[in-house]
Amino acid sequence: MPPDTPSLSWERIAAARERIAGKVTLTPVLSSSSLNELCGAQLYFKCENFQKCGAFKARGASNAVFALPDEVARRGVVTHSSGNHAAALARAARLRGIPAYIVMPDNTVQVKRAAVSRYGAEITYCEPTLAARERAAQALQDSTGAVLVHPYDNLDVMAGQATAAVELLEAVPELDLILCPVGGGGLLGGTAVAARKLKPAIRVVGVEPEGADDAARSLRAGHIVTGVKPNTIADGLRGLLGVHPFAVIRTHVADIDTVSDAAITDAMRRLWEVLKIVVEPSGAVPYAAVAAGALEVRGRRVGLILSGGNLDLDALPWMQPVRHA
Amino acid sequence: MPPDTPSLSWERIAAARERIAGKVTLTPVLSSSSLNELCGAQLYFKCENFQKCGAFKARGASNAVFALPDEVARRGVVTHSSGNHAAALARAARLRGIPAYIVMPDNTVQVKRAAVSRYGAEITYCEPTLAARERAAQALQDSTGAVLVHPYDNLDVMAGQATAAVELLEAVPELDLILCPVGGGGLLGGTAVAARKLKPAIRVVGVEPEGADDAARSLRAGHIVTGVKPNTIADGLRGLLGVHPFAVIRTHVADIDTVSDAAITDAMRRLWEVLKIVVEPSGAVPYAAVAAGALEVRGRRVGLILSGGNLDLDALPWMQPVRHA
Repeated sequence: MPPDTPSLSWERIAAARERIAGKVTLTPVLSSSSLNELCGAQLYFKCENFQKCGAFKARGASNAVFALPDEVARRGVVTHSSGNHAAALARAARLRGIPAYIVMPDNTVQVKRAAVSRYGAEITYCEPTLAARERAAQALQDSTGAVLVHPYDNLDVMAGQATAAVELLEAVPELDLILCPVGGGGLLGGTAVAARKLKPAIRVVGVEPEGADDAARSLRAGHIVTGVKPNTIADGLRGLLGVHPFAVIRTHVADIDTVSDAAITDAMRRLWEVLKIVVEPSGAVPYAAVAAGALEVRGRRVGLILSGGNLDLDALPWMQPVRHA
Repeated sequence: MPPDTPSLSWERIAAARERIAGKVTLTPVLSSSSLNELCGAQLYFKCENFQKCGAFKARGASNAVFALPDEVARRGVVTHSSGNHAAALARAARLRGIPAYIVMPDNTVQVKRAAVSRYGAEITYCEPTLAARERAAQALQDSTGAVLVHPYDNLDVMAGQATAAVELLEAVPELDLILCPVGGGGLLGGTAVAARKLKPAIRVVGVEPEGADDAARSLRAGHIVTGVKPNTIADGLRGLLGVHPFAVIRTHVADIDTVSDAAITDAMRRLWEVLKIVVEPSGAVPYAAVAAGALEVRGRRVGLILSGGNLDLDALPWMQPVRHA
């Protein structure tokens, strides 16, 4: 990152908070005495699975869309994503009454297509490679004048994501530690800046799937490590660490732990059973670190950002669909 | 029922409310704009899946246990149940510091045994017939002096279950209609007495699986219909209508609708997908009536008692477990 690249500031987060109030859900914080007993800590789950569109992505997308000046916004927004950011951007664009152009790989499952088209976005399909997605998104920008809203390497998106941590610390000010999933780093970066501003002594730790550990490696190396080929059940965490997120993560994040896909599956299932909530694999990653003993939490007050609840109920990791002959 | 059998009174419900405050969870009421759009009504889900022990049964069991005089309570409580009432009674007994004796069929699944034994109850196994269960429960009463707490044919249990409807109407006073699942009738009977006291013009409608429709038949016949052999996926609703519940249901309940197991499964799945909460089949029964169009709700404000969230995640109706060769 060039030295003059702007960094995520607290002021941008505070502005995001005001801007998206009423456009996203103030999600609940859940806790469970049986989960607390199991690990000897006090766990507080910030339930972004109850967020609009089923994930924290509604925060960043809403902030980025409503931060645009009128003359830019009117031409619309573009992104290339098959996941929660695409639906969140489509929703935010509809709220503002501007066009949204979404590039999706042509192998995207029906449920994700439907999540985007219900908000009236225009979908462009392309081959399932990053190069094809970027080409298609560039072509759309050129032909429509719409602006790209990157899913995480964007300061307004990061500032929006940070508002989950702000709400969590308002609900539970005495936290010692916040655990946050990390994919591209937008949520972790935002969380870290917000949490350390509100409570300088707090520890913010990222948790990443072993099969997509580019952020953990990058934090150790001191620069963004390339060449990682993500392979994990946590489909929301396959993005590669962004430049803007890394700039704040390297300053404010104490550590990034990794967990196996088996630990993620076990953790997700236990959250369903005990909390009675539907959590997607990516959302279960912070609790997986606690349940698998990947970090010491005994006696601590721990906030966990439970990032989303969107998944295909026909493809649960411990089950397969019933086939009728 | 002999004419001098006491009926469930509002005073008993009001006493229950005070007695169990702090011993059970004041559960949230959820709503969803997309579910509302689908049916053209305003739906309010009273989420008893977030209740202690994962079901409304914690209310009735707590009230019944804490309503006992000291000299009776000290000898303990007995029930024969393999379901949510057993765990709820075990928990209430532990809260009061008295023994709980639970009779269970010897084919009870492990997860239900564990739910009871975690509260320190003494489990007696018997053959999986109603006669064997009743015999074993009677033997325990004779040998220990403990008192039977029936899962639904008990006025203090019913009064406890009624507190869910009281909370729902406090949260959403303008309801036109309340939909409530019906098995033995404890929840429906309590709901009906409470709702009609608080809002005399409200309609209270029961919803029952087609394969366990003894309450619907009894309401039509004007007497308790016997001989129904329950066969439904909604395992919490296989109980046969009780005498005390029927006495108030016939007065206060407008109608009892029935829904198929396929409609229950579809409704449960949609609640998971949209509300991001884990609901058991029995808990999805009221929404199944709405989603399947079994009753007219357009333009109404409808409360739905979402009774619980306990189920075996290895036995979801649309999935089968992965088998490793």
